[in-house]
Amino acid sequence: MDNFTFYSPTYFDFGRGAESHVAELVHRFGGTKVLFHYGGGSIKKSGLYDRVADCLKKEGIAFVELGGVKPNPRSGLVQEGIQLCKSEKVDFILAVGGGSVIDSAKAIAAGSVYDGNFLDFYRGKAVIEKALPVGTVLTIAAAGSEGSGNTVITDEETQIKKGAKSDWLRPKFSILNPELTCTLPAYQTAAGATDIMIHVCERYFSNTEEVEITDRLCEGILKTIIYETPRVIENPENYDARANIMWAGMLAHNNVCGVGREQDWASHHIEHELSALYDVTHGAGLAVIAPLWMRHVMKTNPNKFITFATRVWDIDLNENNPEETALKGIEAFEKFLKNIGMPSSFAELGAKQEDIPLLTDKLMSGRETEGNYVKLTRQDIIEIYESAVR
Amino acid sequence: MDNFTFYSPTYFDFGRGAESHVAELVHRFGGTKVLFHYGGGSIKKSGLYDRVADCLKKEGIAFVELGGVKPNPRSGLVQEGIQLCKSEKVDFILAVGGGSVIDSAKAIAAGSVYDGNFLDFYRGKAVIEKALPVGTVLTIAAAGSEGSGNTVITDEETQIKKGAKSDWLRPKFSILNPELTCTLPAYQTAAGATDIMIHVCERYFSNTEEVEITDRLCEGILKTIIYETPRVIENPENYDARANIMWAGMLAHNNVCGVGREQDWASHHIEHELSALYDVTHGAGLAVIAPLWMRHVMKTNPNKFITFATRVWDIDLNENNPEETALKGIEAFEKFLKNIGMPSSFAELGAKQEDIPLLTDKLMSGRETEGNYVKLTRQDIIEIYESAVR
Repeated sequence: MDNFTFYSPTYFDFGRGAESHVAELVHRFGGTKVLFHYGGGSIKKSGLYDRVADCLKKEGIAFVELGGVKPNPRSGLVQEGIQLCKSEKVDFILAVGGGSVIDSAKAIAAGSVYDGNFLDFYRGKAVIEKALPVGTVLTIAAAGSEGSGNTVITDEETQIKKGAKSDWLRPKFSILNPELTCTLPAYQTAAGATDIMIHVCERYFSNTEEVEITDRLCEGILKTIIYETPRVIENPENYDARANIMWAGMLAHNNVCGVGREQDWASHHIEHELSALYDVTHGAGLAVIAPLWMRHVMKTNPNKFITFATRVWDIDLNENNPEETALKGIEAFEKFLKNIGMPSSFAELGAKQEDIPLLTDKLMSGRETEGNYVKLTRQDIIEIYESAVR
Repeated sequence: MDNFTFYSPTYFDFGRGAESHVAELVHRFGGTKVLFHYGGGSIKKSGLYDRVADCLKKEGIAFVELGGVKPNPRSGLVQEGIQLCKSEKVDFILAVGGGSVIDSAKAIAAGSVYDGNFLDFYRGKAVIEKALPVGTVLTIAAAGSEGSGNTVITDEETQIKKGAKSDWLRPKFSILNPELTCTLPAYQTAAGATDIMIHVCERYFSNTEEVEITDRLCEGILKTIIYETPRVIENPENYDARANIMWAGMLAHNNVCGVGREQDWASHHIEHELSALYDVTHGAGLAVIAPLWMRHVMKTNPNKFITFATRVWDIDLNENNPEETALKGIEAFEKFLKNIGMPSSFAELGAKQEDIPLLTDKLMSGRETEGNYVKLTRQDIIEIYESAVR
């Protein structure tokens, strides 16, 4: 096990009706003038917008609002949010929505107390050393941004999707009410579940040895998603299944299951190029890329895939041919993804074979390899993208 | 799943040599005048005392010290610590040791900013509403106090061991260096592992349904301890095994695996009376009590024991006789405890059959039942204690 630090100081308020505590929590964490940040019209249609706004007003908390965050959130709206925070002297960012809204809020939080262009943080030109406090009301179990210090933004100048991270970006509080996710369509639900699983897999597939405790946590989260996702696809209003997925989604990405070990992140990075270019749903893009990444890297480093097959997918170990066992694990995963309605090819995503050189160029710009479990070259990346064309 | 809140804002610094960051962390969390709190001579013998003291001095952090914390920490030393903090204007408590030292430090932290008798918090007469900040350097993987808001103190006036809890008591930072646990004797190591397992079991054995994610986390922590404990008994200097146990010990008690579900705690409370009266090692007392509690309650509520047997101990389900499966799980646990050198009877603990009425009176004072998975009456408690006499 490697040395590590772990800091997850977010206060989680989880359960039915928890959004009614939003004003009290903003108060507790020092907010007096709030930026109420959200996405499209869905929170207005569902009544959540009104409930949050009324709660803030009753408590006498002033707010300005900025809606319009889109999936794969853009730098332009972040710039707008930063201007608004500065001009309105906002001291607290409240994100009401899914991972995109929260990621956008984090970018605004860091950018509002920084003199330069906030994209410096995403371009590796500056380190986040402070940020306005952020609170969240989560509406989709997927990105895990409600408990993480991570944020991903699409830079509109370059059409490159890039991440930044800092403990400064960990939300002060996150309100997780599984009821809010019960209206989510099956496709979005399944894409969210896929994202959660791959957040775990990026940590699970590691060359660091002797990490039994985090291996076991990873497997427990994966088994939970495998059990609960078909249940919510079958019955979208299954509160308990939604609740288990929602808490698993937070645990998958606050890094409690990833500490002390080398992590990979190649699948995410390979997918980010698809999201940036075609605006595909991140989880759906991962459903295409991650199994292909698995098939590709298993050829050179099968070890962890054998454990993945036996412990996560309950496949009997074939001692005479452990690679067969490993392959069966990947096949079980592919079958699972298909059953929950996820795509498996470029065609289903609207991605094009002729863009593969461009996707690869953007991904590999300025470096030799991608990922850690197996260090992928430019040629490996091309092969993974090509294997999605069918 | 029940509604819950979860707040674990401790900064964990984990790994080889991490104690060298102690002064930097005291600074970061606002300490300027420290109470350096510890136990017997072991940290002086090992050199840890000098390393911590030198680190504080180099950083120019003033400190007063109070050693002498014993296992099952006593109220008298806490009172002394509170006086010292008040007279010396201490603003930060640094606990260097195991769970007893940390629990004592938490009591001092709450008592130093309270006008009444700190035992009010443990007697249910007052609620903790503030506390001095606490930091820890952990030397034993067991109690989980390094990540929890819990503290247990033996009230010397009444010889009753009682707990208090508050998010105010969660350490600001905890330094976890597995190397520091490598010199721990096998018996203490095994007792710590047992304590960790029972922290999980008190949460696992629950009547709350539909808690797949926390069930899976509980099982993952248990499986880690089952795998790693024999390895450190075999080779005490196995750093990685020590590391996995140490992180598992924190996760077993910061409540990440216990949120959203009814918890039990009968085994702990039944054992606390033994610790208070005979000063037995808490984990060793649990090794005697917990399996007997399991055998007793399984008769009325076998359900969770079937899952425990199949998922944790890999016992095949006998569909025609699931209670047989459940019993095999308990037997596997008993065998495990025996193999790591833990006791299974009153005699081995130095406890006496004739004290059972007294133990029961103290435990059941002022209430009708104990525990939740099965609500135990006075008669049940007597039967559990009696079953330990052999």
